[in-house]
Amino acid sequence: MSDPDLAGHDTGPHAQRVAVIGTGLVGASIGLTVRRAGLAREITGYDVDADELDAAVEAGAVTHPASSAAEAAAGAEVVWLAVPASAVGAVAAEVGPAMLPGAVLTDAASVKTRVVELLQAAAPAQVHVIGGHPMAGSAETGAAAASAELFVGATWLLTPTTHTDPQAYRRLHGMIAAIGARVIAVAPQRHDLLVAVVSHLPQLAATTLMNLAADRARDEHAGLLLLAAGGFRDATRVAASNPDLWLDVCAQNRDAIVAVLDEYRDRIDALRTSLIKSDDARLRHELAAARSARRALPGKTVPEGALIELHLAIPDRPGVLADVTTTVGGAGVNIEDVTIEHAPEGGQGRLLLVLAGEAAAAAARQALEDRGFHVATERP
Amino acid sequence: MSDPDLAGHDTGPHAQRVAVIGTGLVGASIGLTVRRAGLAREITGYDVDADELDAAVEAGAVTHPASSAAEAAAGAEVVWLAVPASAVGAVAAEVGPAMLPGAVLTDAASVKTRVVELLQAAAPAQVHVIGGHPMAGSAETGAAAASAELFVGATWLLTPTTHTDPQAYRRLHGMIAAIGARVIAVAPQRHDLLVAVVSHLPQLAATTLMNLAADRARDEHAGLLLLAAGGFRDATRVAASNPDLWLDVCAQNRDAIVAVLDEYRDRIDALRTSLIKSDDARLRHELAAARSARRALPGKTVPEGALIELHLAIPDRPGVLADVTTTVGGAGVNIEDVTIEHAPEGGQGRLLLVLAGEAAAAAARQALEDRGFHVATERP
Repeated sequence: MSDPDLAGHDTGPHAQRVAVIGTGLVGASIGLTVRRAGLAREITGYDVDADELDAAVEAGAVTHPASSAAEAAAGAEVVWLAVPASAVGAVAAEVGPAMLPGAVLTDAASVKTRVVELLQAAAPAQVHVIGGHPMAGSAETGAAAASAELFVGATWLLTPTTHTDPQAYRRLHGMIAAIGARVIAVAPQRHDLLVAVVSHLPQLAATTLMNLAADRARDEHAGLLLLAAGGFRDATRVAASNPDLWLDVCAQNRDAIVAVLDEYRDRIDALRTSLIKSDDARLRHELAAARSARRALPGKTVPEGALIELHLAIPDRPGVLADVTTTVGGAGVNIEDVTIEHAPEGGQGRLLLVLAGEAAAAAARQALEDRGFHVATERP
Repeated sequence: MSDPDLAGHDTGPHAQRVAVIGTGLVGASIGLTVRRAGLAREITGYDVDADELDAAVEAGAVTHPASSAAEAAAGAEVVWLAVPASAVGAVAAEVGPAMLPGAVLTDAASVKTRVVELLQAAAPAQVHVIGGHPMAGSAETGAAAASAELFVGATWLLTPTTHTDPQAYRRLHGMIAAIGARVIAVAPQRHDLLVAVVSHLPQLAATTLMNLAADRARDEHAGLLLLAAGGFRDATRVAASNPDLWLDVCAQNRDAIVAVLDEYRDRIDALRTSLIKSDDARLRHELAAARSARRALPGKTVPEGALIELHLAIPDRPGVLADVTTTVGGAGVNIEDVTIEHAPEGGQGRLLLVLAGEAAAAAARQALEDRGFHVATERP
């Protein structure tokens, strides 16, 4: 299953050269972080905006600026596309043919199903595609705002599929873990359903609330927005986001967003019915449940606890890596490290997962056993 | 129209004695602020929770603790009820009969139509009822968290009605302006429609979003809430509010909330339709309009500009004060001071409004002229 090439050798997460295409806030922060962690000797970079590329070099995020995306990608073991979702297809088509056999092509777009399809269509057979989505950002934009701290403690989603090569996955996973982010594996389609809930719905709800209030202020009462206190300000903060970015997201994740908006509208309607009926028991339940859930919202934390290994006997077939890692991700558990060992006789292999802490190990084991895997636990 | 009693004498906003019933965060902050501004020599206070009353005395918010609400209210020229909306009726029934003729009875509840009805029902004929709602709060509660700064620059809504006595209104208005808040006059019913938009809808939208996400995390994907970044946290922050408080608000402002939820649900549905139809022009319009409106949201500011007087010839009839002040409030303009002069022959009087800055004066004048008033401007 491993390739007879550079990426096939297990060098851990370290690389000679990494490329960052798109050196805005996220791309430049990736470059800074990879460099600070000593994960690559050279960081090539390219941006369509020459000023952004200059700023990334200035910030120390790119060691070797290139004059095209293909030039930046040539010779890199990992190529990171940090461009808008709508640009991924064109950029991938340009860099794919220039990439080393065995190299990893990944991205940072906030939608994944369509983006991963485009990456796979653009990449030659020997290039390993793994979609990625760092859940970190900032109100600021551009390379000048880049920070090596941006991803520390943040969740970084990877979207392995049945085509994902285990060695390539391990390299990318290791690199992201080494820069301090928590890796959660999730299938591309599932990813898009999840972000529709936690990112796209909040955006569109804020947009709707802001427009409702602004229209009423204009049509009915100019003093309305003078009454806007902290709660309204919090609830509408993301409504100030860039419309172009969100049009892109809406286009790329239309089906998932529509499904979530359906449910949200139905829940608003049910709450309205409870109010009309003076169903205080129901209202109290909704208010109390939301309060508990909001208070329990996990923070941006670095997990603690001793490392624990789970060992799984696995059939040596494509897709088992994606199956195992997304099952563990579905339990909300970050995998610290992952290795596949192939049995010499073939047919049956062994997969090692490293997890941090007893609770994470227990949750992962349960989820894997529910899915039919046989799991042994070892405490190194 | 003026009364032959204490409040009828124009002493400006200054009083011998002010009472605060309910000495939690808001009540104790009122006491502190009134005292710091030198607006009253004595501040009597009462709270059903003896510890809260002790804390208010300790904080310097109450100079004369009383052993009952009626005892606190006796002899005060202004009585402030800072108790939950659901308690206003009972407390007003207790304090009303104890109050001085000509004194002002006001409150700080976040709903007004029902509360003002209860205040009016409880107050003797010679007591002047004016509903109030300071748009300021804090994540903290209790007298220990009270601050004389809480209301500086904040909007304080007053809800005059056709029954409102101009001298009493002027006294209360002057006291609130003197403590640094911006007074906006709005009719009680209109108040409740406005807060349904800027306060109650954001609360229920946050509750709904939080429950939708938490239910999906439980039923579908335990990792869901690990993906919750800043936008989700902001959008759901108020979902952690006290359920009892919000049940109270829902009960007191049911009709207005249902009407706003109707519109919100319809707007969510329209957005969903735009997504399904890939109506990018419509989506872009919604996203861009919300962005502009959010960026233009007025801050907690103290208005600047020279004081300008508007003089209005007014018919000497009940309700003209409420009509004028809520018309100006409807234009989003804070009135710095208000005086009614009655013509000796009766039948026609003159009303003076003091406004800060040319823009405020022009907006107020336009709104009043649209409503049929004749307005003359003077720059003192």
